[in-house]
Amino acid sequence: MSDPKSFHMTAEEFRRNGYALIDWIADYHARVESFPVLSQVKPGEVRASLPAHPPAQPESFESLLKDVERVILPGVTHWQSPNFFAYFPCNASGPGILGDLLSSGLGVQGMLWSTSPACTELETHVLDWLVGMLALPAKFLSTSTGGGVIQDTASSAALCALLAARERATNYASNKKGCDGRVIAYCSTQTHSSLQKAAMIAGIGTDNLRLIEVDEKFAMRPEALARQIEADKNAGLLPAFVCATVGTTSSNAMDPLPAIGKICREHGLWMHVDAAMSGTAALCPEFRHFQNGLEFGDSYNFNPHKWMFTNFDCNCFWVADRKALIQTLSILPEYLRNQATESGAVIDYRDWHIQLGRRFRSLKLWFVIRHYGVEGLQYHIREHVRLAQEFARWVGKDQRFELAAPVPLNLVCFRHRAGDEANQTIMDRLNCSGDLFLTHTKLNGKLTLRLCIGQTHTEQRHVENAWKRICEEAAKLTSAKAQRDTTAPA
Amino acid sequence: MSDPKSFHMTAEEFRRNGYALIDWIADYHARVESFPVLSQVKPGEVRASLPAHPPAQPESFESLLKDVERVILPGVTHWQSPNFFAYFPCNASGPGILGDLLSSGLGVQGMLWSTSPACTELETHVLDWLVGMLALPAKFLSTSTGGGVIQDTASSAALCALLAARERATNYASNKKGCDGRVIAYCSTQTHSSLQKAAMIAGIGTDNLRLIEVDEKFAMRPEALARQIEADKNAGLLPAFVCATVGTTSSNAMDPLPAIGKICREHGLWMHVDAAMSGTAALCPEFRHFQNGLEFGDSYNFNPHKWMFTNFDCNCFWVADRKALIQTLSILPEYLRNQATESGAVIDYRDWHIQLGRRFRSLKLWFVIRHYGVEGLQYHIREHVRLAQEFARWVGKDQRFELAAPVPLNLVCFRHRAGDEANQTIMDRLNCSGDLFLTHTKLNGKLTLRLCIGQTHTEQRHVENAWKRICEEAAKLTSAKAQRDTTAPA
Repeated sequence: MSDPKSFHMTAEEFRRNGYALIDWIADYHARVESFPVLSQVKPGEVRASLPAHPPAQPESFESLLKDVERVILPGVTHWQSPNFFAYFPCNASGPGILGDLLSSGLGVQGMLWSTSPACTELETHVLDWLVGMLALPAKFLSTSTGGGVIQDTASSAALCALLAARERATNYASNKKGCDGRVIAYCSTQTHSSLQKAAMIAGIGTDNLRLIEVDEKFAMRPEALARQIEADKNAGLLPAFVCATVGTTSSNAMDPLPAIGKICREHGLWMHVDAAMSGTAALCPEFRHFQNGLEFGDSYNFNPHKWMFTNFDCNCFWVADRKALIQTLSILPEYLRNQATESGAVIDYRDWHIQLGRRFRSLKLWFVIRHYGVEGLQYHIREHVRLAQEFARWVGKDQRFELAAPVPLNLVCFRHRAGDEANQTIMDRLNCSGDLFLTHTKLNGKLTLRLCIGQTHTEQRHVENAWKRICEEAAKLTSAKAQRDTTAPA
Repeated sequence: MSDPKSFHMTAEEFRRNGYALIDWIADYHARVESFPVLSQVKPGEVRASLPAHPPAQPESFESLLKDVERVILPGVTHWQSPNFFAYFPCNASGPGILGDLLSSGLGVQGMLWSTSPACTELETHVLDWLVGMLALPAKFLSTSTGGGVIQDTASSAALCALLAARERATNYASNKKGCDGRVIAYCSTQTHSSLQKAAMIAGIGTDNLRLIEVDEKFAMRPEALARQIEADKNAGLLPAFVCATVGTTSSNAMDPLPAIGKICREHGLWMHVDAAMSGTAALCPEFRHFQNGLEFGDSYNFNPHKWMFTNFDCNCFWVADRKALIQTLSILPEYLRNQATESGAVIDYRDWHIQLGRRFRSLKLWFVIRHYGVEGLQYHIREHVRLAQEFARWVGKDQRFELAAPVPLNLVCFRHRAGDEANQTIMDRLNCSGDLFLTHTKLNGKLTLRLCIGQTHTEQRHVENAWKRICEEAAKLTSAKAQRDTTAPA
């Protein structure tokens, strides 16, 4: 209930309700393995349990929590389950959740330095920390020519990079006159779909996004990129941007950054490097070789909200030349003018992304880094990679299955040799069982299962059980087929 | 500290730390009036208090909270202070904070219906509730041709609307071929700067965003809009989009929606209506007249994170024709394909905004609506408007001051008659004092003070004190001037 006079939740109620919710969350994580990982509700089922009209009068917090349990929970796909192996992870942690809570509690809006200096400066500082933690090139430091900013997602980061590239290539004329259909962008056939979306949004058009072919490891072929750039230049077009990927979504392929980077430098193209999930691996020196060539990069991003225990949303995006980004996205209406901005001594992050308003998102990242320490983070990344490699060995040793792509880190792409239908059946049965959740892709035209290990609490036993369940479903396939074969008319 | 084996925060630690943080937030709100509203730190001061390198080993939660108090708090501009009258509010509340905490605790990623059906269905449902609560046209209901989605900010909503308009006008060709410089968009000279930014991002260009002149109330002149559209059509261009505003940022001006809407309909333009702050007022029937004409709107948005006690970020965006929006932003790579999507029976919100990933943001909105009830929300909106009207009367009765614009709702634009320098001095002194925080704009070329009433806990006494402090600073001006005049050489 609330203060009968003002309807507000009183301080005492906030404490009591807050404790209750903290307990609910602790309990949720303790029992998360008891739920089917993939929600089993049918379309419309959640809505059907909700009243058609909002309440005119206040309702109690207890009634809210009851409905969370009754209506919401059955409709949740449990991204925080250790049996979640689908897509890429979106892992969270105690310090991440509490850092986010602090952000909500402070309720600041960090669009300008002056609207909360700590929101800007902690963000700049933690992103400088990460340059060291991930051994990124020093040019990405805010103390150099570049700097980092927290975006919501890798999609937004890619869009900002593409816009900055567009403007740099057109001498900042597109912002003023609009696009003219001449700017060309490049990525591979395996690059994340957000690049296609960014090309649409930015007025470049998907026809002008060249999807460069890949090699047998699903990595971009640099010679094909070079040929296409030459062809576009000869056609009078304006090659401007390349997105290279460290760990593609589909199969975790690693584009060859040094070769791509040299081509970009030769032709004056902006190289954006997307390491949305795999970037976190660079916390460990032994995995940093994947980002060799990043010294050619104009921008780089990875998602602590994927594999670094920091609640969604938290994408870290760096540029080597912050002036290019700011000149692309800057707007200064009278009502936002202030002394600090005019002095030029501060960063106003509203000029570093699409939105104007922004949360205090660096708090959760700061909490996570300090809670785990660099060594704690490294420990978990190594464990996840070790588990994925072990799973890949099991697959490799089983005659019924084959690995469908190299396994550089924590994503295993594999399939049953019996073909697409068999793999679809295995996946559907596993996901319907609720025991685990994995998803698929297509590689070389074949349906391929993806098992990605990166959930905060995934341990050996969860991966062992996943393999056991996969083998069980594969065995059912074989016996069903045997049965069909014996009962078939002669 | 953390589990020594895994570095994770244990369930027991999470409870203990969570309680401590809930207490800290309750205490923060209890003592928020004791801090200077505008942070008094100098550029670089926060960073200077932070260690140059991240910790290698885990640190305790206690040490984190100590640093929040020591380093972060002095660098916070207190948006949740009842003495915050700057910009537009970004108000929060107990249920808003806790709803957001639940979202962090569940840690779901709602890009597709299937990745958490409840995340999609609660959002659709609450946005349908709001159509009724705000008396919006029925076409915005998900059960009609339209539907609502939560965006991060009004900037992103405006960008999505502009993109959908661009595609509709070009028969969805710009997405494919890129922009060709012919699409024209319209807003007024008073429209929020995010429209200019959206025109840049969308490849339309600021030259192709026509800033239509305003009348003496700072509202768009429809006849000027009509003239400009005709001129552009005659020049072979492609008028596509108008943004009309319910409550401009600068002065809370109300664009005439019926007249603008008729022009849009006549010429086939997409009308987007931006009611970022003022939209909340429509909770009260007596304030709904400002949105007359919304029946012509193709899209509409307002921010519960501004004036409806729902933590940032939460922008509600509706379209009348959801197909136009989805066709503009849809992408479907193989790794996101799933049965529910193919069935067509569900909403996949990733096709309704720029990003792919998304938080479970409807929880906080649901918590707020249920905690306050519609009547509780109405109570506060009426109080804020009443306080603003009272403040405006005080200004109107004081010979030293003048109102600079009509006061339709909760924003008062006013100025000292002594000119820009005097107003700048009054504002700087008030903001430096820390007693309150207000900001400025320029209206008819004159520096104008803005006092916006919408913070959750702002009451009569805070507004009275603001006026008292403004009068004190005005008196100092007069006495300083008098002193200068008497000491000036004859």
